[in-house]
Amino acid sequence: MRRFVVVGHKAVTTGDFKLDDIAGGAGRLDILVRCVNSAFFLSHDIRKDTELFLVLQGGCDPPKTVRFAGSELRYLNPDERSTSALIRNALMKRVGEGEERSSPGIYVSKASFADVIGALSEKGGMVYLREDGADVRAGGLPPDPVFVLSDNVDLTEEEERVLLGHGAMEVSIGPHSLHGDHCIVIAHNEMDRSPP
Amino acid sequence: MRRFVVVGHKAVTTGDFKLDDIAGGAGRLDILVRCVNSAFFLSHDIRKDTELFLVLQGGCDPPKTVRFAGSELRYLNPDERSTSALIRNALMKRVGEGEERSSPGIYVSKASFADVIGALSEKGGMVYLREDGADVRAGGLPPDPVFVLSDNVDLTEEEERVLLGHGAMEVSIGPHSLHGDHCIVIAHNEMDRSPP
Repeated sequence: MRRFVVVGHKAVTTGDFKLDDIAGGAGRLDILVRCVNSAFFLSHDIRKDTELFLVLQGGCDPPKTVRFAGSELRYLNPDERSTSALIRNALMKRVGEGEERSSPGIYVSKASFADVIGALSEKGGMVYLREDGADVRAGGLPPDPVFVLSDNVDLTEEEERVLLGHGAMEVSIGPHSLHGDHCIVIAHNEMDRSPP
Repeated sequence: MRRFVVVGHKAVTTGDFKLDDIAGGAGRLDILVRCVNSAFFLSHDIRKDTELFLVLQGGCDPPKTVRFAGSELRYLNPDERSTSALIRNALMKRVGEGEERSSPGIYVSKASFADVIGALSEKGGMVYLREDGADVRAGGLPPDPVFVLSDNVDLTEEEERVLLGHGAMEVSIGPHSLHGDHCIVIAHNEMDRSPP
């Protein structure tokens, strides 16, 4: 299994945002929906062996985590607007202690970054994608990697502490610093080329 | 210089489409705007050494080609909606014999696929991205590559004939068939790693 965790530091946590304004009023939700696209889409298929966690930390009800399970996903289209609508549906759900399902393969909870990383560290090896890490082509990715990325700002010191506390390896995907969704494409390509 | 040519077989060629419906009414324009994003965006910069040609073949006034010149681009944001608006502005321009500029770095013309490929074949080596090509990591990419991709359907036989007639090498970016925008990310990564 491949997993991706993307932190949206200012991303909305309630469903009252406009689909016409996901890059503005929704706290750069556009960045996160592009990560959904690159985590799951093959040319004519969905990556069923992938799970994506969007950790939303802005808006009126932080934190919330929206989880996408590739093996169960339905109704996912590649465009930003329709994916934003799926996330909005999830954020309209009343959330209690556990996870709530909002549509097939999409779940929402009150999990924080530390909650998500803590839970996933028992399922795979943490991989912190950052410019000054070791080259991804040098090998050594864990068999069930959990790739962790940030949005348009870096992880906070506290988030880094949590992640490195779980033994994350620091990996770079190439000579340039790229957007999160582009990093996901390259991470997938690397895994596709060296199946466990 | 790196160049990308993406064919939109059903993509609109006039500016009378709705920004809320780029995946439907605009003939899968969503696919092409995602290619704009991956052709130009670095984390905090624009790739100035890149040019992108969107060859639009649907709608009421085909063909049209919208050219993006990285070295001149302004007002480009990563989200699909705002890029679609830039393309719509270009398609609203009255076009005669040559190219018209619609905003900094964005040009529109009546050039066909054959026109674009013919002109670019004098500037660099053609690279046809396709599943059954040679692995991109095997090396041998030309120093000024012109990567040619299609939208959600394959190039037509006639388009293939034009492309192969200009000596295109056939290259695969990995074990799976991917969306065009994802292919562009990987092509850039490969070029970033082996500068000419």
